[in-house]
Amino acid sequence: MNDALAQRAGIPVVHAMRYALQGGKRIRAFLVIEGAALFGIPMARAMPAAAAVEALHAYSLVHDDLPCMDNDDLRRGQPTVHVKWDEATAVLAGDALQTLAFELCCDPLLGQADRRIELVRAFARASGAEGMVLGQALDIAAESAATPLTLQEITALQAGKTGALISFSAEAGPILAGADRAPLAAYANALGLAFQIADDILDVEGDPAKAGKRLGKDAGAGKATFVSLLGLEGAKSRARALIDEAETALLPYGATAQNLRDAARFVISREM
Amino acid sequence: MNDALAQRAGIPVVHAMRYALQGGKRIRAFLVIEGAALFGIPMARAMPAAAAVEALHAYSLVHDDLPCMDNDDLRRGQPTVHVKWDEATAVLAGDALQTLAFELCCDPLLGQADRRIELVRAFARASGAEGMVLGQALDIAAESAATPLTLQEITALQAGKTGALISFSAEAGPILAGADRAPLAAYANALGLAFQIADDILDVEGDPAKAGKRLGKDAGAGKATFVSLLGLEGAKSRARALIDEAETALLPYGATAQNLRDAARFVISREM
Repeated sequence: MNDALAQRAGIPVVHAMRYALQGGKRIRAFLVIEGAALFGIPMARAMPAAAAVEALHAYSLVHDDLPCMDNDDLRRGQPTVHVKWDEATAVLAGDALQTLAFELCCDPLLGQADRRIELVRAFARASGAEGMVLGQALDIAAESAATPLTLQEITALQAGKTGALISFSAEAGPILAGADRAPLAAYANALGLAFQIADDILDVEGDPAKAGKRLGKDAGAGKATFVSLLGLEGAKSRARALIDEAETALLPYGATAQNLRDAARFVISREM
Repeated sequence: MNDALAQRAGIPVVHAMRYALQGGKRIRAFLVIEGAALFGIPMARAMPAAAAVEALHAYSLVHDDLPCMDNDDLRRGQPTVHVKWDEATAVLAGDALQTLAFELCCDPLLGQADRRIELVRAFARASGAEGMVLGQALDIAAESAATPLTLQEITALQAGKTGALISFSAEAGPILAGADRAPLAAYANALGLAFQIADDILDVEGDPAKAGKRLGKDAGAGKATFVSLLGLEGAKSRARALIDEAETALLPYGATAQNLRDAARFVISREM
């Protein structure tokens, strides 16, 4: 590609990609690195997969914040990409972040080709029309539904929207090691649901300065949340039970899983 | 994912994905299949890669047609996805089509894992912020530039916007066969540029009924095109020279490359 043209055009897309990758809690990258460590894969070797899940997560946030989707103007304490640049740049930056995520999974650092291709396959299944994108589509459809979602429906929605990528992040380690994914899948399924419940609690009683995004949106929109369906205390107690479940799933790994155990506790200690 | 919820929400995203995959000339899929055939890879084995490039191309069209991008309401003779559904569905359907494209590259039918992972890597590089997305970003930036693009700039823009994916399509066969990609890369680079020049000619003198999209848009917008820069006859003669170049690149393959030769001729016979 022609440098003069690139400079002339300013190439805001690449700047927007970098911007969208900044900040955040990096929970997904943490899960990749800690999940890999359980199987003796050092951080340096797991890093491309950790970067990949963060790039994919960043793409989903940039697109979800668009005016035609959730129409958010604040993310991680900063203006969203379409506010700082424009909608076209936000669409393209999100598109290229998704592409980058799959490119990162090809890095030879991650090990044998057959493990890497299985990583790409599982990553795509978690992110696509049967995973994350389905969850987001259900979320948008729910906004115009005649009646609020039931607890079963909102649990299914969450399993797609945030659960699928969180589960993939935890399973990346066993995938790269060619090991059994079931214990970390069980851990991550419970953690992901607890995380979403904690987010709903945060939306009601959180501190906007700490959250880095607008709060009270869901309640204001009359949207069904875990808090509206279970009550504040009910939601807190469900989240605590899920964290116990997540910890139980880690038993096979003993003391080496201490960081993953601490992370589970952190999720519900944010605001409750 | 919960079937009841899926039905209740209607899941327009999956319908929109299918809709966006219909029609079109399938030139990219053709290039994958014919490129693979040169190396003895039968059509059935190359098919997942052919489907992958069409899925990726369809995603790029759905997003490029959005109001914040090229704002097109007609594509392949049908209403564009955001017109038939809405913008949110178009963003999500495009997103999931990109994901599907990478998932298709993991299909074991395509052969050894190391070849498949190289396919994913080359595919991502062709589609991302250094390939197709860069080309589209430059195209959008050019619209607000103070002066029209030069011939060198518009050639660079095309190399990203349509050239990168056309080249990848032709190179998929040699990648899967572990063979030299250079001859098919040279063929596809010339073909891709000729294809874009032919599209610019079509925009000026084509039949809207045959094209299945609005014509005369670029000239109306005062946008630089190969026709505005070279004149109609100059553009036609440049396209013909590129097709000769593409045919020359196929010489190493002799008679087995006849379909690829015919395809090159077809590109410039559409309207000139």
